[in-house]
Amino acid sequence: MHSETQQALIDYLSGFVTSERRDRIEAVLSQRTRHITVVLEDIKHTQNASAVLRSCDIFGLQDIHIVEQNYGFRARRMVTAGANKWLTLHRYRPDATAGLTANQRCFDTLRAKGYAIAATTPSKQGILPDAIAINQPLAIVFGSEKKGISDIALQQANCYLHLPMYGFSESFNLSVSVGLCLQPVIHRLRSSSLPWRLSETEKFDLRLDWLRKAAQSAEALERRFWQNYGDSAEAKTHH
Amino acid sequence: MHSETQQALIDYLSGFVTSERRDRIEAVLSQRTRHITVVLEDIKHTQNASAVLRSCDIFGLQDIHIVEQNYGFRARRMVTAGANKWLTLHRYRPDATAGLTANQRCFDTLRAKGYAIAATTPSKQGILPDAIAINQPLAIVFGSEKKGISDIALQQANCYLHLPMYGFSESFNLSVSVGLCLQPVIHRLRSSSLPWRLSETEKFDLRLDWLRKAAQSAEALERRFWQNYGDSAEAKTHH
Repeated sequence: MHSETQQALIDYLSGFVTSERRDRIEAVLSQRTRHITVVLEDIKHTQNASAVLRSCDIFGLQDIHIVEQNYGFRARRMVTAGANKWLTLHRYRPDATAGLTANQRCFDTLRAKGYAIAATTPSKQGILPDAIAINQPLAIVFGSEKKGISDIALQQANCYLHLPMYGFSESFNLSVSVGLCLQPVIHRLRSSSLPWRLSETEKFDLRLDWLRKAAQSAEALERRFWQNYGDSAEAKTHH
Repeated sequence: MHSETQQALIDYLSGFVTSERRDRIEAVLSQRTRHITVVLEDIKHTQNASAVLRSCDIFGLQDIHIVEQNYGFRARRMVTAGANKWLTLHRYRPDATAGLTANQRCFDTLRAKGYAIAATTPSKQGILPDAIAINQPLAIVFGSEKKGISDIALQQANCYLHLPMYGFSESFNLSVSVGLCLQPVIHRLRSSSLPWRLSETEKFDLRLDWLRKAAQSAEALERRFWQNYGDSAEAKTHH
């Protein structure tokens, strides 16, 4: 699966981060999940998108799917407070040659990975987040601030999510909505016996990725590692 | 309690709003509560504060307490989407003469009204929103984005609220945090047999207030009402 070399690189890089940081990486890894994921369709306000990423990181989600049919996405560092660098962002753009919209490409990918699709829309009577089925991996789609979810999301959805509302305002702020949908779902997932945690292979890959991000001047360190590693491999060969 | 005159004014103004709007006002009134309230201490970003107001309206909260010790508060119309006009905003400023900070004035007022104080802070091990006592009226305090809650809030708190976090980021966006704290509390309150709804008197006052806001040119209408009312009262006296 993973070479001894990669393990050696992980051990090497681990020497350049504090033990607190190493512990934090292991703690977060042990809580990470791909069983639930979030799709953001054409979010216009990067501040909203960035607050969403921060929430997803805190809830322990690893993957976020970002559809850029009309609007490009730039994570605003200030608001995410760096959350996006610990997440795997899957970005989708239109493919004119294949005649596919960014949305279609995103849902095709999720389907192929075995995700059920839950769409959030005020226009359909839906299920409360407390009640939605989570035995299958679940992708929750959030539409743009004004237009809501795309027609493709509406068609692709296995079910609709609905938040109870008792006031005059007709929708929560987007990042609040994501938080409110995820909170009960994540709570139930964590109390369940479902296999929601990452595999050892996934953890291995992320550990290396996060160490690269956590270590100061990781690139220079890695160059040095490969140089030494090459020397020692050569040494081994020649002796 | 309420004069026939006020009831007559309500009936008069009701004639100038659509039946949908009247129904909406009654539906929202029947779901409104003062049993739970939110305190915002010195929120710097009005966009955050405005998203919070929108959530509070949707959850059915009527009162929001806004402490302006360092920062003034301007509801940004775009983000609240008008939510603030349906809420009762209680604003506190420092009282130099009495030597009271805005925060102290806010907590004195809440205590006098019988509220328990729950503070949200990452610095104290707290209770989950699912578990916090709600038999007594409860005010939940949210601090400013950077500094967190004030020392006075820390001292005044009967308990601390805590949200579980599994990622690298150390705090949710403020408006997300408010949503996540309120969601389980409001859910439990609504399923409880506690007397959380507004009294008939409170509903009467709010109904009049909301009709004034809902009717086009309500001020001119009201002037006409009082003129006619005066005439008819005079007519009654003279005949």
